[in-house]
Amino acid sequence: MAGPEIEHLVQLLARLPGLGQRSARRAALTLLKRREQLLAPLAAAMTDAAAKVKTCSVCGNYDSVDPCAICADQRRDPSLICVVEDVASLWAMERSGLFKGRYHVLGGVLSALDGIGPDDLFIDRLVARASAEEVAEVILAMAATVDGQTTAHYLVDRLANCHVAVSGLAQGVPVGGELDYLDDGTIGAALRARRPIA
Amino acid sequence: MAGPEIEHLVQLLARLPGLGQRSARRAALTLLKRREQLLAPLAAAMTDAAAKVKTCSVCGNYDSVDPCAICADQRRDPSLICVVEDVASLWAMERSGLFKGRYHVLGGVLSALDGIGPDDLFIDRLVARASAEEVAEVILAMAATVDGQTTAHYLVDRLANCHVAVSGLAQGVPVGGELDYLDDGTIGAALRARRPIA
Ligand SMILES: [Zn+2]
Ligand SMILES: [Zn+2]
Repeated sequence: MAGPEIEHLVQLLARLPGLGQRSARRAALTLLKRREQLLAPLAAAMTDAAAKVKTCSVCGNYDSVDPCAICADQRRDPSLICVVEDVASLWAMERSGLFKGRYHVLGGVLSALDGIGPDDLFIDRLVARASAEEVAEVILAMAATVDGQTTAHYLVDRLANCHVAVSGLAQGVPVGGELDYLDDGTIGAALRARRPIA
Repeated sequence: MAGPEIEHLVQLLARLPGLGQRSARRAALTLLKRREQLLAPLAAAMTDAAAKVKTCSVCGNYDSVDPCAICADQRRDPSLICVVEDVASLWAMERSGLFKGRYHVLGGVLSALDGIGPDDLFIDRLVARASAEEVAEVILAMAATVDGQTTAHYLVDRLANCHVAVSGLAQGVPVGGELDYLDDGTIGAALRARRPIA
Protein backbone atom coordinates (compact mmCIF):
# COMPACT_ATOMS: atom_id res chain seq x y z
CA MET A 1 0.00 0.00 0.00
CA ALA A 2 2.21 2.86 1.24
CA GLY A 3 5.98 2.87 1.84
CA PRO A 4 7.55 0.73 4.58
CA GLU A 5 7.90 3.65 7.03
CA ILE A 6 4.17 4.38 6.78
CA GLU A 7 3.17 0.69 6.96
CA HIS A 8 5.30 0.24 10.08
CA LEU A 9 3.71 3.31 11.68
CA VAL A 10 0.19 2.00 10.95
CA GLN A 11 1.00 -1.43 12.38
CA LEU A 12 2.33 0.04 15.64
CA LEU A 13 -0.61 2.45 15.98
CA ALA A 14 -2.98 -0.50 15.51
CA ARG A 15 -1.60 -1.98 18.74
CA LEU A 16 -2.99 0.88 20.80
CA PRO A 17 -6.24 0.10 22.66
CA GLY A 18 -9.32 1.28 20.83
CA LEU A 19 -7.51 1.65 17.51
CA GLY A 20 -8.23 -1.09 14.99
CA GLN A 21 -6.55 -1.37 11.61
CA ARG A 22 -8.91 1.13 10.06
CA SER A 23 -8.64 3.79 12.75
CA ALA A 24 -4.86 3.26 12.89
CA ARG A 25 -4.75 4.15 9.19
CA ARG A 26 -6.87 7.24 9.84
CA ALA A 27 -4.59 8.24 12.72
CA ALA A 28 -1.50 7.74 10.54
CA LEU A 29 -3.00 9.86 7.78
CA THR A 30 -3.79 12.66 10.24
CA LEU A 31 -0.20 12.48 11.50
CA LEU A 32 1.23 12.50 7.98
CA LYS A 33 -1.01 15.39 6.98
CA ARG A 34 0.11 17.40 10.00
CA ARG A 35 3.78 16.43 10.09
CA GLU A 36 5.02 19.67 11.66
CA GLN A 37 2.16 20.40 14.03
CA LEU A 38 1.36 16.90 15.28
CA LEU A 39 3.63 14.08 14.08
CA ALA A 40 6.95 15.68 15.09
CA PRO A 41 5.70 16.88 18.53
CA LEU A 42 4.13 13.49 19.26
CA ALA A 43 7.33 11.68 18.23
CA ALA A 44 9.28 13.98 20.58
CA ALA A 45 6.79 13.49 23.43
CA MET A 46 7.01 9.71 23.04
CA THR A 47 10.80 9.72 22.88
CA ASP A 48 10.82 11.91 25.98
CA ALA A 49 8.38 9.66 27.85
CA ALA A 50 10.24 6.50 26.82
CA ALA A 51 13.48 7.97 28.17
CA LYS A 52 12.17 9.55 31.35
CA VAL A 53 9.09 7.77 32.68
CA LYS A 54 9.73 5.15 35.35
CA THR A 55 7.54 2.96 37.52
CA CYS A 56 7.60 4.30 41.10
CA SER A 57 9.46 1.78 43.24
CA VAL A 58 7.25 2.61 46.22
CA CYS A 59 3.68 2.65 44.84
CA GLY A 60 3.86 1.52 41.19
CA ASN A 61 2.67 4.83 39.68
CA TYR A 62 4.27 6.16 36.48
CA ASP A 63 6.31 9.34 36.75
CA SER A 64 9.60 10.86 35.62
CA VAL A 65 10.86 10.79 39.19
CA ASP A 66 11.21 7.83 41.55
CA PRO A 67 9.65 7.94 44.12
CA CYS A 68 6.79 9.54 42.19
CA ALA A 69 5.53 13.06 42.91
CA ILE A 70 2.64 11.67 44.97
CA CYS A 71 4.87 9.49 47.16
CA ALA A 72 7.31 12.39 47.59
CA ASP A 73 4.61 14.96 48.41
CA GLN A 74 4.96 15.73 52.12
CA ARG A 75 1.52 17.35 52.19
CA ARG A 76 -0.14 14.02 51.46
CA ASP A 77 -1.25 11.98 54.43
CA PRO A 78 1.20 9.08 54.98
CA SER A 79 -1.25 7.28 57.24
CA LEU A 80 -3.60 6.44 54.35
CA ILE A 81 -2.86 3.99 51.52
CA CYS A 82 -5.39 3.54 48.71
CA VAL A 83 -4.92 0.22 46.89
CA VAL A 84 -5.82 0.36 43.20
CA GLU A 85 -5.72 -2.24 40.47
CA ASP A 86 -3.72 -0.18 37.96
CA VAL A 87 -2.44 3.30 37.15
CA ALA A 88 -5.66 4.05 35.23
CA SER A 89 -7.56 3.70 38.51
CA LEU A 90 -4.98 5.86 40.29
CA TRP A 91 -5.48 8.59 37.67
CA ALA A 92 -9.27 8.32 38.08
CA MET A 93 -8.93 8.77 41.86
CA GLU A 94 -6.62 11.75 41.35
CA ARG A 95 -9.06 13.39 38.93
CA SER A 96 -11.67 13.33 41.68
CA GLY A 97 -9.24 15.39 43.74
CA LEU A 98 -10.74 13.94 46.90
CA PHE A 99 -8.09 11.52 48.13
CA LYS A 100 -5.18 13.07 49.98
CA GLY A 101 -3.27 9.95 51.03
CA ARG A 102 -0.90 7.78 49.02
CA TYR A 103 -1.43 4.87 46.63
CA HIS A 104 -0.43 1.30 46.05
CA VAL A 105 -0.79 -0.09 42.52
CA LEU A 106 -1.43 -3.84 42.69
CA GLY A 107 -0.72 -4.47 39.02
CA GLY A 108 -3.98 -6.33 38.42
CA VAL A 109 -6.46 -8.44 40.36
CA LEU A 110 -6.52 -12.12 41.24
CA SER A 111 -8.10 -14.07 38.39
CA ALA A 112 -8.43 -17.84 38.16
CA LEU A 113 -9.50 -17.44 34.53
CA ASP A 114 -6.44 -15.41 33.53
CA GLY A 115 -4.15 -17.44 35.78
CA ILE A 116 -3.20 -14.45 37.94
CA GLY A 117 -2.27 -15.48 41.49
CA PRO A 118 -0.99 -13.53 44.52
CA ASP A 119 2.63 -13.82 43.36
CA ASP A 120 1.79 -11.97 40.15
CA LEU A 121 0.66 -8.88 42.06
CA PHE A 122 2.54 -6.44 44.32
CA ILE A 123 0.95 -7.83 47.47
CA ASP A 124 4.06 -8.57 49.57
CA ARG A 125 5.17 -5.00 48.98
CA LEU A 126 1.76 -3.75 50.13
CA VAL A 127 1.93 -5.82 53.31
CA ALA A 128 5.40 -4.42 54.00
CA ARG A 129 4.21 -0.85 53.46
CA ALA A 130 1.09 -1.37 55.57
CA SER A 131 3.25 -2.69 58.41
CA ALA A 132 5.05 0.64 58.76
CA GLU A 133 4.12 2.48 61.91
CA GLU A 134 2.86 5.61 60.14
CA VAL A 135 0.15 3.71 58.23
CA ALA A 136 -3.26 3.69 59.95
CA GLU A 137 -5.69 2.73 57.18
CA VAL A 138 -5.65 0.84 53.90
CA ILE A 139 -8.54 1.63 51.53
CA LEU A 140 -9.23 -1.12 48.99
CA ALA A 141 -10.43 0.58 45.80
CA MET A 142 -10.69 -2.41 43.47
CA ALA A 143 -13.53 -2.58 40.97
CA ALA A 144 -16.87 -3.99 42.14
CA THR A 145 -16.34 -7.09 39.99
CA VAL A 146 -16.08 -10.71 41.12
CA ASP A 147 -12.28 -10.69 40.66
CA GLY A 148 -11.96 -7.27 42.28
CA GLN A 149 -13.90 -8.34 45.33
CA THR A 150 -12.09 -11.72 45.55
CA THR A 151 -8.85 -9.74 45.58
CA ALA A 152 -10.20 -7.42 48.28
CA HIS A 153 -11.13 -10.39 50.50
CA TYR A 154 -7.69 -11.92 50.00
CA LEU A 155 -6.02 -8.61 50.93
CA VAL A 156 -8.14 -8.31 54.10
CA ASP A 157 -6.65 -11.66 55.20
CA ARG A 158 -3.12 -10.70 54.24
CA LEU A 159 -3.37 -7.35 56.06
CA ALA A 160 -4.81 -8.90 59.22
CA ASN A 161 -1.56 -8.70 61.19
CA CYS A 162 -0.53 -5.23 60.01
CA HIS A 163 -2.43 -3.30 62.69
CA VAL A 164 -4.23 -1.15 60.15
CA ALA A 165 -7.90 -0.47 59.55
CA VAL A 166 -8.97 -1.90 56.19
CA SER A 167 -11.89 -0.31 54.34
CA GLY A 168 -13.52 -0.57 50.92
CA LEU A 169 -15.25 1.94 48.67
CA ALA A 170 -19.00 2.14 49.22
CA GLN A 171 -21.12 0.52 46.55
CA GLY A 172 -24.28 2.15 45.31
CA VAL A 173 -25.96 4.24 42.68
CA PRO A 174 -23.43 6.45 40.86
CA VAL A 175 -24.10 10.16 41.24
CA GLY A 176 -26.23 11.24 38.29
CA GLY A 177 -26.83 7.60 37.34
CA GLU A 178 -30.37 6.89 36.24
CA LEU A 179 -31.67 3.63 37.67
CA ASP A 180 -32.84 2.61 34.25
CA TYR A 181 -29.23 2.34 33.06
CA LEU A 182 -27.85 0.45 36.04
CA ASP A 183 -27.30 -3.29 36.18
CA ASP A 184 -29.08 -5.41 38.77
CA GLY A 185 -25.91 -5.91 40.82
CA THR A 186 -25.51 -2.18 41.37
CA ILE A 187 -29.16 -1.70 42.24
CA GLY A 188 -29.01 -4.66 44.64
CA ALA A 189 -25.91 -3.32 46.36
CA ALA A 190 -27.44 0.14 46.69
CA LEU A 191 -30.60 -1.38 48.15
CA ARG A 192 -28.73 -3.50 50.69
CA ALA A 193 -26.64 -0.50 51.75
CA ARG A 194 -29.69 1.81 52.01
CA ARG A 195 -29.54 4.50 54.68
CA PRO A 196 -32.21 6.25 56.70
CA ILE A 197 -32.96 9.76 55.48
CA ALA A 198 -33.06 12.18 58.39
CA MET B 1 -2.72 14.27 37.55
CA ALA B 2 0.49 12.69 36.22
CA GLY B 3 3.85 14.34 35.52
CA PRO B 4 4.20 16.95 32.73
CA GLU B 5 5.74 14.45 30.25
CA ILE B 6 2.75 12.15 30.62
CA GLU B 7 0.21 15.00 30.50
CA HIS B 8 1.81 16.32 27.32
CA LEU B 9 1.70 12.85 25.76
CA VAL B 10 -2.00 12.44 26.62
CA GLN B 11 -2.87 15.87 25.18
CA LEU B 12 -1.12 15.11 21.87
CA LEU B 13 -2.69 11.64 21.62
CA ALA B 14 -6.11 13.21 22.20
CA ARG B 15 -5.63 15.13 18.94
CA LEU B 16 -5.68 11.92 16.90
CA PRO B 17 -8.97 11.16 15.15
CA GLY B 18 -11.15 8.74 17.08
CA LEU B 19 -9.27 9.26 20.35
CA GLY B 20 -11.07 11.40 22.89
CA GLN B 21 -9.58 12.44 26.19
CA ARG B 22 -10.51 9.15 27.81
CA SER B 23 -9.16 6.87 25.11
CA ALA B 24 -6.03 9.04 24.84
CA ARG B 25 -5.40 8.32 28.52
CA ARG B 26 -5.94 4.60 27.92
CA ALA B 27 -3.54 4.70 24.96
CA ALA B 28 -0.93 6.56 27.03
CA LEU B 29 -1.23 4.00 29.84
CA THR B 30 -0.76 1.13 27.38
CA LEU B 31 2.32 2.89 26.01
CA LEU B 32 3.73 3.54 29.49
CA LYS B 33 3.06 -0.04 30.54
CA ARG B 34 4.87 -1.35 27.46
CA ARG B 35 7.69 1.15 27.27
CA GLU B 36 10.20 -1.18 25.63
CA GLN B 37 7.90 -3.16 23.35
CA LEU B 38 5.58 -0.39 22.13
CA LEU B 39 6.38 3.16 23.29
CA ALA B 40 10.02 3.21 22.16
CA PRO B 41 9.34 1.55 18.75
CA LEU B 42 6.39 3.87 18.09
CA ALA B 43 8.48 6.92 19.04
CA ALA B 44 11.16 5.73 16.61
CA ALA B 45 8.63 5.03 13.83
CA MET B 46 7.13 8.51 14.24
CA THR B 47 10.53 10.19 14.28
CA ASP B 48 11.44 8.23 11.15
CA ALA B 49 8.18 9.13 9.39
CA ALA B 50 8.46 12.80 10.40
CA ALA B 51 11.96 12.92 8.91
CA LYS B 52 11.38 10.90 5.75
CA VAL B 53 7.81 11.12 4.55
CA LYS B 54 7.10 13.73 1.90
CA THR B 55 4.09 14.71 -0.17
CA CYS B 56 4.61 13.53 -3.77
CA SER B 57 5.07 16.62 -5.95
CA VAL B 58 3.34 14.89 -8.85
CA CYS B 59 0.24 13.25 -7.35
CA GLY B 60 0.02 14.35 -3.69
CA ASN B 61 0.48 10.86 -2.21
CA TYR B 62 2.63 10.39 0.92
CA ASP B 63 5.88 8.44 0.53
CA SER B 64 9.52 8.57 1.53
CA VAL B 65 10.50 9.19 -2.08
CA ASP B 66 9.40 11.99 -4.41
CA PRO B 67 7.95 11.21 -6.92
CA CYS B 68 6.19 8.50 -4.93
CA ALA B 69 6.61 4.79 -5.65
CA ILE B 70 3.33 4.73 -7.59
CA CYS B 71 4.25 7.68 -9.83
CA ALA B 72 7.71 6.18 -10.39
CA ASP B 73 6.42 2.67 -11.16
CA GLN B 74 6.95 2.15 -14.89
CA ARG B 75 4.59 -0.83 -14.86
CA ARG B 76 1.64 1.39 -14.02
CA ASP B 77 -0.40 2.71 -16.93
CA PRO B 78 0.49 6.39 -17.50
CA SER B 79 -2.61 6.88 -19.66
CA LEU B 80 -4.98 6.60 -16.67
CA ILE B 81 -5.29 9.12 -13.82
CA CYS B 82 -7.64 8.39 -10.93
CA VAL B 83 -8.64 11.58 -9.07
CA VAL B 84 -9.23 11.05 -5.35
CA GLU B 85 -10.20 13.42 -2.59
CA ASP B 86 -7.40 12.49 -0.18
CA VAL B 87 -4.67 9.95 0.53
CA ALA B 88 -7.14 7.84 2.55
CA SER B 89 -9.12 7.29 -0.66
CA LEU B 90 -5.91 6.51 -2.55
CA TRP B 91 -5.05 3.85 0.04
CA ALA B 92 -8.56 2.40 -0.23
CA MET B 93 -8.20 2.14 -4.03
CA GLU B 94 -4.78 0.52 -3.65
CA ARG B 95 -6.13 -2.03 -1.17
CA SER B 96 -8.60 -3.16 -3.81
CA GLY B 97 -5.57 -3.91 -6.01
CA LEU B 98 -7.68 -3.30 -9.09
CA PHE B 99 -6.47 0.05 -10.38
CA LYS B 100 -3.23 -0.03 -12.35
CA GLY B 101 -2.98 3.61 -13.42
CA ARG B 102 -1.76 6.61 -11.45
CA TYR B 103 -3.43 8.98 -9.01
CA HIS B 104 -4.10 12.62 -8.39
CA VAL B 105 -4.91 13.70 -4.85
CA LEU B 106 -7.17 16.77 -4.92
CA GLY B 107 -6.65 17.65 -1.27
CA GLY B 108 -10.38 17.87 -0.53
CA VAL B 109 -13.63 18.65 -2.34
CA LEU B 110 -15.35 21.91 -3.14
CA SER B 111 -17.52 22.96 -0.23
CA ALA B 112 -19.48 26.17 0.08
CA LEU B 113 -20.12 25.36 3.73
CA ASP B 114 -16.43 24.91 4.58
CA GLY B 115 -15.39 27.76 2.28
CA ILE B 116 -13.30 25.49 0.03
CA GLY B 117 -13.07 26.82 -3.52
CA PRO B 118 -11.18 25.64 -6.62
CA ASP B 119 -8.01 27.52 -5.59
CA ASP B 120 -7.82 25.50 -2.38
CA LEU B 121 -7.54 22.22 -4.30
CA PHE B 122 -4.85 20.89 -6.66
CA ILE B 123 -7.01 21.40 -9.73
CA ASP B 124 -4.64 23.46 -11.93
CA ARG B 125 -2.03 20.76 -11.43
CA LEU B 126 -4.58 18.11 -12.47
CA VAL B 127 -5.47 20.02 -15.64
CA ALA B 128 -1.78 20.35 -16.47
CA ARG B 129 -1.21 16.61 -15.95
CA ALA B 130 -4.33 15.67 -17.92
CA SER B 131 -3.10 17.82 -20.82
CA ALA B 132 -0.02 15.66 -21.29
CA GLU B 133 -0.16 13.59 -24.45
CA GLU B 134 0.19 10.25 -22.68
CA VAL B 135 -3.00 10.71 -20.63
CA ALA B 136 -6.13 9.21 -22.24
CA GLU B 137 -8.62 8.97 -19.37
CA VAL B 138 -9.30 10.68 -16.04
CA ILE B 139 -11.42 8.70 -13.60
CA LEU B 140 -13.17 10.84 -10.99
CA ALA B 141 -13.35 8.80 -7.78
CA MET B 142 -14.81 11.35 -5.41
CA ALA B 143 -17.32 10.22 -2.80
CA ALA B 144 -20.99 10.02 -3.82
CA THR B 145 -21.81 13.02 -1.65
CA VAL B 146 -23.25 16.37 -2.72
CA ASP B 147 -19.84 18.08 -2.40
CA GLY B 148 -18.08 15.15 -4.09
CA GLN B 149 -20.42 15.22 -7.05
CA THR B 150 -20.32 19.04 -7.28
CA THR B 151 -16.54 18.74 -7.47
CA ALA B 152 -16.82 16.05 -10.15
CA HIS B 153 -19.06 18.27 -12.27
CA TYR B 154 -16.66 21.18 -11.88
CA LEU B 155 -13.73 18.97 -12.92
CA VAL B 156 -15.60 17.75 -16.01
CA ASP B 157 -15.82 21.40 -17.11
CA ARG B 158 -12.19 22.14 -16.30
CA LEU B 159 -11.00 19.04 -18.16
CA ALA B 160 -13.11 19.78 -21.26
CA ASN B 161 -10.18 21.05 -23.33
CA CYS B 162 -7.67 18.40 -22.24
CA HIS B 163 -8.60 15.82 -24.89
CA VAL B 164 -9.16 13.10 -22.32
CA ALA B 165 -12.12 10.86 -21.61
CA VAL B 166 -13.58 11.65 -18.18
CA SER B 167 -15.39 8.92 -16.25
CA GLY B 168 -16.82 8.42 -12.77
CA LEU B 169 -17.17 5.41 -10.48
CA ALA B 170 -20.45 3.56 -10.87
CA GLN B 171 -22.95 4.06 -8.08
CA GLY B 172 -25.01 1.21 -6.70
CA VAL B 173 -25.45 -1.39 -4.01
CA PRO B 174 -22.10 -2.25 -2.36
CA VAL B 175 -21.08 -5.87 -2.78
CA GLY B 176 -22.37 -7.76 0.26
CA GLY B 177 -24.46 -4.78 1.31
CA GLU B 178 -27.88 -5.70 2.60
CA LEU B 179 -30.59 -3.38 1.30
CA ASP B 180 -31.90 -2.96 4.81
CA TYR B 181 -28.71 -1.11 5.82
CA LEU B 182 -28.46 1.19 2.81
CA ASP B 183 -29.63 4.78 2.72
CA ASP B 184 -32.30 5.87 0.26
CA GLY B 185 -29.82 7.72 -1.95
CA THR B 186 -27.82 4.56 -2.59
CA ILE B 187 -30.92 2.51 -3.28
CA GLY B 188 -32.23 5.21 -5.62
CA ALA B 189 -28.94 5.40 -7.51
CA ALA B 190 -28.80 1.60 -7.83
CA LEU B 191 -32.39 1.56 -9.09
CA ARG B 192 -31.80 4.28 -11.68
CA ALA B 193 -28.66 2.52 -12.91
CA ARG B 194 -30.37 -0.90 -13.06
CA ARG B 195 -29.16 -3.22 -15.77
CA PRO B 196 -30.91 -5.99 -17.68
CA ILE B 197 -29.94 -9.45 -16.48
CA ALA B 198 -29.10 -11.65 -19.44
ZN1 LIG C 1 4.84 6.48 44.11
ZN1 LIG D 1 2.99 10.34 -6.72
